[in-house]
Amino acid sequence: MHKEGFPVVLGHEGAGIVESIGPGVTEFKPGDKVIPLFISQCRECRFCKSPKTNQCVKGWAADRYDVMALEETRLTCKGKKLLQFLGTSTFSEYTVLNQIAVAKIDPAAPLDKVCLLGCGVCTGFGAAVNTAQVEPGSTCAVFGLGAVGLAAVMGCKFAGAKRIIAVDINPEKFEKAKVFGATEFVNPKDHSRPISQVLAEMTEGGVDYSLECVGNVAVMRSALESCVKGWGVSVLVGWTDLHDFAARPIQLIAGRTWKGTLFGGFKSKDGVPEMVKAYLDRKVKLDEFITHNMTLDRVNDAIELMKHGQCIRTVLSVSQP
Amino acid sequence: MHKEGFPVVLGHEGAGIVESIGPGVTEFKPGDKVIPLFISQCRECRFCKSPKTNQCVKGWAADRYDVMALEETRLTCKGKKLLQFLGTSTFSEYTVLNQIAVAKIDPAAPLDKVCLLGCGVCTGFGAAVNTAQVEPGSTCAVFGLGAVGLAAVMGCKFAGAKRIIAVDINPEKFEKAKVFGATEFVNPKDHSRPISQVLAEMTEGGVDYSLECVGNVAVMRSALESCVKGWGVSVLVGWTDLHDFAARPIQLIAGRTWKGTLFGGFKSKDGVPEMVKAYLDRKVKLDEFITHNMTLDRVNDAIELMKHGQCIRTVLSVSQP
Repeated sequence: MHKEGFPVVLGHEGAGIVESIGPGVTEFKPGDKVIPLFISQCRECRFCKSPKTNQCVKGWAADRYDVMALEETRLTCKGKKLLQFLGTSTFSEYTVLNQIAVAKIDPAAPLDKVCLLGCGVCTGFGAAVNTAQVEPGSTCAVFGLGAVGLAAVMGCKFAGAKRIIAVDINPEKFEKAKVFGATEFVNPKDHSRPISQVLAEMTEGGVDYSLECVGNVAVMRSALESCVKGWGVSVLVGWTDLHDFAARPIQLIAGRTWKGTLFGGFKSKDGVPEMVKAYLDRKVKLDEFITHNMTLDRVNDAIELMKHGQCIRTVLSVSQP
Repeated sequence: MHKEGFPVVLGHEGAGIVESIGPGVTEFKPGDKVIPLFISQCRECRFCKSPKTNQCVKGWAADRYDVMALEETRLTCKGKKLLQFLGTSTFSEYTVLNQIAVAKIDPAAPLDKVCLLGCGVCTGFGAAVNTAQVEPGSTCAVFGLGAVGLAAVMGCKFAGAKRIIAVDINPEKFEKAKVFGATEFVNPKDHSRPISQVLAEMTEGGVDYSLECVGNVAVMRSALESCVKGWGVSVLVGWTDLHDFAARPIQLIAGRTWKGTLFGGFKSKDGVPEMVKAYLDRKVKLDEFITHNMTLDRVNDAIELMKHGQCIRTVLSVSQP
């Protein structure tokens, strides 16, 4: 997929404890529980200062979304440069982070649970709550029921959606989606008609909000076309940079809005500690995403599970307690 | 372009006087000045009742945007059915309209000016004011400087934009754009780089709002890509149904929003009389769009002028006073 970016230390969704701090760092001290942020919040750039966006300009690659890692790195192995994936590299016992890309969290937070807030859960949940701005009583459709999609389902429910239609070609995901608040389930493989037509028939013309949590441009199109004319909002949550997404102009001219989200629109240093608190206050679920726990040496087994849709999230422990 | 829709009486942007009313019509009386509406406002459907949209479900073809005219028609000629273009047919001395598709306007309004409010001027103006919701102090780019684009420029200025960059490959349009409030002018033919890059360099990373007023899917892509990441909003105003519009997912994931507008988002029966009043109060310009006046028998000459970019609007008089 990417030509650039090797050798690299992968991993970007994690949680840890500060081991030491560099000169000038006053916000953290050794022993603090933290979550690494692949999207920074410098609090100084015009993006951080705007309430409209979370896309800090000082991040690891604010204008280089096409690469996994910048050439500058803080990691070496036996004198050889190792690139730092998304500025984080969490598949490691130690990593080095810029303070604008670290969130201090509640000392009571269990690291092996809140690690999920480093990417997927915030991304899906925020896509519904912050980006789509799902309204109470509305009808939503979530395409793709991995961790991001399930978190989007949870976000729709949190925002007060009345109907949450979970869409996946793997019906084994439906039971799990119910846990997070899905009210109906559609498997596109059960229908010969386009899924947008199926959803339109179920919903008097289309859903109010659709969230694409797959990263497939054909699904992006379906998700848009599944929205009701007039006010439907479709959000790209899944990631791909391999192909164009596309639709007919009338889809937007008829009143639909197409948006996208990165990290669910959360300003990272502000949002992650709040989400940790919401978990501790039992307002959002995390445990239910975790289907497997392994040690880091089994990372390849974990990736195989993910590739075959056999897990939701596998939490890797990088150090034995 | 369209297989369906002939024989037809064309024309949809006009103004006139009520000649007679049908049974049950109480809102109008003979002598009222009116503007025909190609997009209706029944005030009863869930779209009319929502503040979010103007897309009345009872319109001439609420779900048939791909046709110019429905099979039902109110017009005949020597016993032969003539289709009614967009439910209006204004290239005619008389037409028959549904009362949900007629706006009563101020008796003081000059018909040969306010006729422009039947489509293009409301579309462009509303695209900026209602759909993009341009904010004071912002930077805008308008692609295409026909009547719709010039009206979009006027809308950006009305909304308080600080910079309004007018983009057209016909530099003869720039003087006119200045009249409506454009502050800068860019001819893509003067640049070998993509226009989005030119605009990004002029604007510290991109414009806050871009409005595509051409109806060309390549321009739609450029307009989106010309927006600043984080909060840029691009609106499809121009009409085409021949091709898909497309972009890379990162364009939206980076925080841009893609919208579209039909009739500038104005609820038609409410909005058109207000725009007529705004014209009479000198808050919006109309005279400056009109470059030619002709009688209806010269309609083909008017269309030739338009096809060659030699007019902005030609007003056709359908009856001699």
